[in-house]
Amino acid sequence: MKLKTMEGGFTICGDNQVYLEHTEQKPALYVGYGEASIDMYRGNFKIEDYVVQRYPLNVVSITGTSDGAQIDFGGLKAKICIDQELLTIYFEKTDPNINRFWLRIPSDKAEKCYGCGEQMSYFNLKGRHFPLWTSEPGVGRDKTTYVTWRSDVENKAGGDYYHTNYPEPTFVSSKHYYFHTDCTAYADFDFRHDDFHELQFWDVPESIRIEHADTFAALVQKLTDYLGRQPVLPEWVYDGAIIGVQGGTKRAFALADRSIRNGIKVNGIWCQDWEGKRVTSFGKRLQWDWQWNKELYPGLPEKIAQYREKGIRFLGYINPYLVNDGELYAEAKEKGYFAVKEDGSDYLVDFGEFYCGVVDLTNPEAYEWFKDRVIKKNMIEFGLSGWMADFGEYLPTDLKLYNGVSPMIEHNHWPARWAKCNYDALKETDTLGKEVFYFMRAGGTGNQKYCTMMWAGDQSVDFSIHDGLASVIVGALSVGMCGCGLHHSDIGGYTSLFGNTRTKELFQRWADMAIFTPLMRTHECNRPEENFQYYDDGDTMELFAAQTDVHVMLKPYIKALVEENSQTGMPVQRPLFMHYEDDARAYDIQTEYLFGKDMLIAPVYLEGQTEWKVYLPEDEWVHLWTGKSFAGGDVTVEAPIGRIPAFYRKNSAYAPLFEAIRKKYGE
Amino acid sequence: MKLKTMEGGFTICGDNQVYLEHTEQKPALYVGYGEASIDMYRGNFKIEDYVVQRYPLNVVSITGTSDGAQIDFGGLKAKICIDQELLTIYFEKTDPNINRFWLRIPSDKAEKCYGCGEQMSYFNLKGRHFPLWTSEPGVGRDKTTYVTWRSDVENKAGGDYYHTNYPEPTFVSSKHYYFHTDCTAYADFDFRHDDFHELQFWDVPESIRIEHADTFAALVQKLTDYLGRQPVLPEWVYDGAIIGVQGGTKRAFALADRSIRNGIKVNGIWCQDWEGKRVTSFGKRLQWDWQWNKELYPGLPEKIAQYREKGIRFLGYINPYLVNDGELYAEAKEKGYFAVKEDGSDYLVDFGEFYCGVVDLTNPEAYEWFKDRVIKKNMIEFGLSGWMADFGEYLPTDLKLYNGVSPMIEHNHWPARWAKCNYDALKETDTLGKEVFYFMRAGGTGNQKYCTMMWAGDQSVDFSIHDGLASVIVGALSVGMCGCGLHHSDIGGYTSLFGNTRTKELFQRWADMAIFTPLMRTHECNRPEENFQYYDDGDTMELFAAQTDVHVMLKPYIKALVEENSQTGMPVQRPLFMHYEDDARAYDIQTEYLFGKDMLIAPVYLEGQTEWKVYLPEDEWVHLWTGKSFAGGDVTVEAPIGRIPAFYRKNSAYAPLFEAIRKKYGE
Repeated sequence: MKLKTMEGGFTICGDNQVYLEHTEQKPALYVGYGEASIDMYRGNFKIEDYVVQRYPLNVVSITGTSDGAQIDFGGLKAKICIDQELLTIYFEKTDPNINRFWLRIPSDKAEKCYGCGEQMSYFNLKGRHFPLWTSEPGVGRDKTTYVTWRSDVENKAGGDYYHTNYPEPTFVSSKHYYFHTDCTAYADFDFRHDDFHELQFWDVPESIRIEHADTFAALVQKLTDYLGRQPVLPEWVYDGAIIGVQGGTKRAFALADRSIRNGIKVNGIWCQDWEGKRVTSFGKRLQWDWQWNKELYPGLPEKIAQYREKGIRFLGYINPYLVNDGELYAEAKEKGYFAVKEDGSDYLVDFGEFYCGVVDLTNPEAYEWFKDRVIKKNMIEFGLSGWMADFGEYLPTDLKLYNGVSPMIEHNHWPARWAKCNYDALKETDTLGKEVFYFMRAGGTGNQKYCTMMWAGDQSVDFSIHDGLASVIVGALSVGMCGCGLHHSDIGGYTSLFGNTRTKELFQRWADMAIFTPLMRTHECNRPEENFQYYDDGDTMELFAAQTDVHVMLKPYIKALVEENSQTGMPVQRPLFMHYEDDARAYDIQTEYLFGKDMLIAPVYLEGQTEWKVYLPEDEWVHLWTGKSFAGGDVTVEAPIGRIPAFYRKNSAYAPLFEAIRKKYGE
Repeated sequence: MKLKTMEGGFTICGDNQVYLEHTEQKPALYVGYGEASIDMYRGNFKIEDYVVQRYPLNVVSITGTSDGAQIDFGGLKAKICIDQELLTIYFEKTDPNINRFWLRIPSDKAEKCYGCGEQMSYFNLKGRHFPLWTSEPGVGRDKTTYVTWRSDVENKAGGDYYHTNYPEPTFVSSKHYYFHTDCTAYADFDFRHDDFHELQFWDVPESIRIEHADTFAALVQKLTDYLGRQPVLPEWVYDGAIIGVQGGTKRAFALADRSIRNGIKVNGIWCQDWEGKRVTSFGKRLQWDWQWNKELYPGLPEKIAQYREKGIRFLGYINPYLVNDGELYAEAKEKGYFAVKEDGSDYLVDFGEFYCGVVDLTNPEAYEWFKDRVIKKNMIEFGLSGWMADFGEYLPTDLKLYNGVSPMIEHNHWPARWAKCNYDALKETDTLGKEVFYFMRAGGTGNQKYCTMMWAGDQSVDFSIHDGLASVIVGALSVGMCGCGLHHSDIGGYTSLFGNTRTKELFQRWADMAIFTPLMRTHECNRPEENFQYYDDGDTMELFAAQTDVHVMLKPYIKALVEENSQTGMPVQRPLFMHYEDDARAYDIQTEYLFGKDMLIAPVYLEGQTEWKVYLPEDEWVHLWTGKSFAGGDVTVEAPIGRIPAFYRKNSAYAPLFEAIRKKYGE
């Protein structure tokens, strides 16, 4: 990259493109002043902005060379630094009234962009704008559906295409650069303009980064060199599926035994209600007081030990809130570990018919207490080998934090703080990457390093494009482009509302896909009784036994992919263009993925299908189940349940492994 | 009012209030540049703005006295003129890039504002913003209803609280001033801020007016001194109800005869399909080729003459579009009278499964042709005594007009142009206020003078607050505050979609209210077969006979009110505060109205009621049906169907007339 300064502006070019250009005629930097209005209802936010002023920055003075410059813009100073393929700009606000910042990055119609954290509806961001604010992702996420309309009317919870648990001000462009900033203020990345992206921040970022690389592989590596990478998973994670069961010792272990008897490879029993349960109108919820519930789970320590001997782990659940009728709440309140109202009084957050305190993770003592007293003592020492580290999106914007930083800035930072609290507990107990892991839906900058595994959040239990099976693929691909390469989902989805219930077909198709992710895990969903459960159905148990078996057979391959991700940031699930950069069509595909370099997976994401049309980039592909060869292009294959369209590269070093799967389950 | 200039700004004060203040610290004037995106689908608009710049105006130079000043703001010049209680500011844009203009008018929490044309959901504007753009008003107009959701999904047609056929950049404040501008650009009046109203325009207005008066009566008079006033109605209009029937000569006149036989006072037979019909999936639509349809209405001229002898007029229908398979279309196209695409080719507008040309009313020849050839010849000369002058809201923003003005500016101007075309036809045939009148739903600045009668548009056939019976009251009150004091509605509403159908109760309650409006008129609605019709029900005909009789008994009173409106701009239907300025509660009432100074009407706007709670300002009120006296406050009265809560002032000069009604229909 090269910097060129001139009177009133500058240009940063390289690799036949303009990375940034700011002149009087064509400003790239705008600042101003806005008044936000934020309304939170159970993790769903209504956010409005009244922009009082917005104007381009005018250069007052500029001094510089080809790889650096200092610019005084009047109310704001900028320092541009170029280090080969990396551009960093540091900003310093001198006018305290400025609280809005807009940056235009040159674009063109053909450019495509990916990332912005975990996006569930659209992988390619171009053509839409993406508000970046961690929140509930929405139910249905599609204003044309009945489920979304009802959710909006009853709970303000319908959501839209951009709602996500994990937003991040980071994207990768088809023009071979990434953009990233550590700024955690509310942002809105607008890719609707033909000739520029406009990135909006409700704060002046301390710095922004734009880095170029010749390949996408090199780009994700550079990005994760900066952001960090997920560690490897414990060995046992590859040895089967983690089954989500609940309801107490007797029921949970009985269902595990029934699964095992039916040939299902079980490597973990996940009881989200290990700490007790609470029933609300939404469905079954949990007792947010993070410790073993002896009433519901009598004899649990013995059971954990007993199953561990069989190679089966026990997993639990936690989140960073404490319910106000719990023991831990009383302890934390006494110690003053909760975030409070402006006037210092208690701040309780409505989580849906129960109320919780927000443990103030910016208070080092509170952080330590939660990590040591809760996670290390109550969970790791107790014998849990993993848990869902849920939530992180609900930081209200009108509370007072220990560190004095505005909750408007901390809100998007909270998931990474929450991830780090879990990470530190594992690190300090030397269980990280060895015995224990946790999976999160919330995220932000920092998850790359601190979150051991993403999970896609609460999909609807259906085949809907914006909130069903297909949305999980988009989630995995987008978060992968941001440097989080380990991703999985609740098999069969989670949210069942307004008569929308999980079918047998949905569970089976979803499990087919889950084989080809780094982790298989089931969930009974929010209303277990009304929804299909694999353990109630002989056919499905038989199928699930085969599905978990294939997954276990793939262990050497999957383990290598997870290892690769930890070394280079290369995601386990990858877009087709990652390895086929010259294939123009590869850039528009969001419902197929490469599972490592050697497999292409095209999940059947619609109901009632018997065959499936797949696009294959030019290569020597072998259909996993039949051994039929394809050279690329559009192909149609038989796709009955149990035979997800899956292909491997003929020249793969793992070809014998794939052939073994075919011999056992194919033809 | 007094002007005070200072370095960097000015203040305009008077009557213990600040009308306008612009200083460096507290700017009132902002300008900037925006890029709009407009999407029209069958009269429903999706409007988005990308505000590229917005900044306060800084005074470059200012010269002035206490009643006038000239200000140079750099990109814009302003001339302030004060004439006693009237402030006029003329603006001249010198920077051609400016296309957005914002004006802040000082306010306080207690202030209330009314107007913005015809608003159907909220009479008091304070606390909400009102985009001003003539369009379809929406079906249901409430995102929490099934009807609105389905309409949004299927036709982008659900609408919201601010959608209206008749927006106008005019309001009256409880602080005894009105604001008005003739600017017809897209506007958004934002009354959400505690301490100022912010008025946004997508153009720099040539001028704005703020005028004070000591009373609201004086205010509407001053406003209509400037804007003009509706003329009186023809005498025959008071002689009964205009019944909406259709389906051809035989059916229409048979239904009229049946109505008359049942004692209903009929003064007009309104056949909207006099020009023929067209059936679409929405329901029955019309043949938009404005001439007598001989096939459907054989012998119509004879029938018209025959019924006129009985004192019954015949009314038809027209709008300013021509369907592309009609004779008039061919004629207008040959003459080049249609608005065209930018490249000069035909521009056809989708009206819902049929396509029309837009007669270019900015072309004087096209205007004359439509007025003479269509309205005067085909309608007035043919023998019509009135018509629905429908539509006017669909001017697309991407066509080319004869006068070279942007359709973005002409769009909101179109309804008034359309009104004037009808007005001129009546004026030139000397039928205005004597024999012929027309009723319109579309509007804008100019309707005050050019529209002989407003009708409330297409309500849903239900009791819903935002689109049913109650919304009509709000419509009448708000449009009345803008100087259009003649208003009525389809008895029983119009729009029946998605299983929402008119009930007998709805028709009866609506007719109860219509007695106390300047005009009674029925409509079979868009799907006549599925909805309740009065003529199919003996009870309802009996009731409707009484209702029309009461209306006719009120003729001297109503006629005097219409006359008053034509002289002073005092609306026939008035908010309670119009005559009870000291009554604080009067300012918040939008479901009762004064029908002239001497009657208070509180329509029963909910289903299944037997009694009704009414608020009465302090006065000597007499209950119309029982003669019971009230001194004011909250009172509850029996309110069976047929006995709408109606009160008159004991000291009214019309008391004997009201007593006569009681004697005939009350006790």
